[in-house]
Amino acid sequence: MSEIKYEIIETIAVLSESSKGWKKELNLISWNSREPKYDLRDWSPNRDKMGKGVTLTKEELLQLKKLLNEMDELD
Amino acid sequence: MSEIKYEIIETIAVLSESSKGWKKELNLISWNSREPKYDLRDWSPNRDKMGKGVTLTKEELLQLKKLLNEMDELD
Repeated sequence: MSEIKYEIIETIAVLSESSKGWKKELNLISWNSREPKYDLRDWSPNRDKMGKGVTLTKEELLQLKKLLNEMDELD
Repeated sequence: MSEIKYEIIETIAVLSESSKGWKKELNLISWNSREPKYDLRDWSPNRDKMGKGVTLTKEELLQLKKLLNEMDELD
């Protein structure tokens, strides 16, 4: 079984929390000791399990910010 | 093998494209004919394969928007 090493460098924000205590978080994470990336995913209450998620570069996060600010339905 | 039905209701934006043609997209997707949710994930060139991703409610997307606008490093 392969192993993924990761280190949560910074918890930027918690977007929501489910009734079972899982939190959707934006973190800055270093995967396998590489340069940290932004990471949006669900985490279990003690952070012992991670859900599926996406990693984002700073450029992608900038694009996302621009986009969200342009979405009428979020006004 | 179980099956997940999904329908892409709306492609809101493409955040980036990799050298292999995979795109990181924000879509509005209905999973198993349920109410559509926002969905951030990677898709292969013909959308025949999907990468891991997160689904987000409108409230989570609003939180994310607020957060991104507060992040100094994205100014």
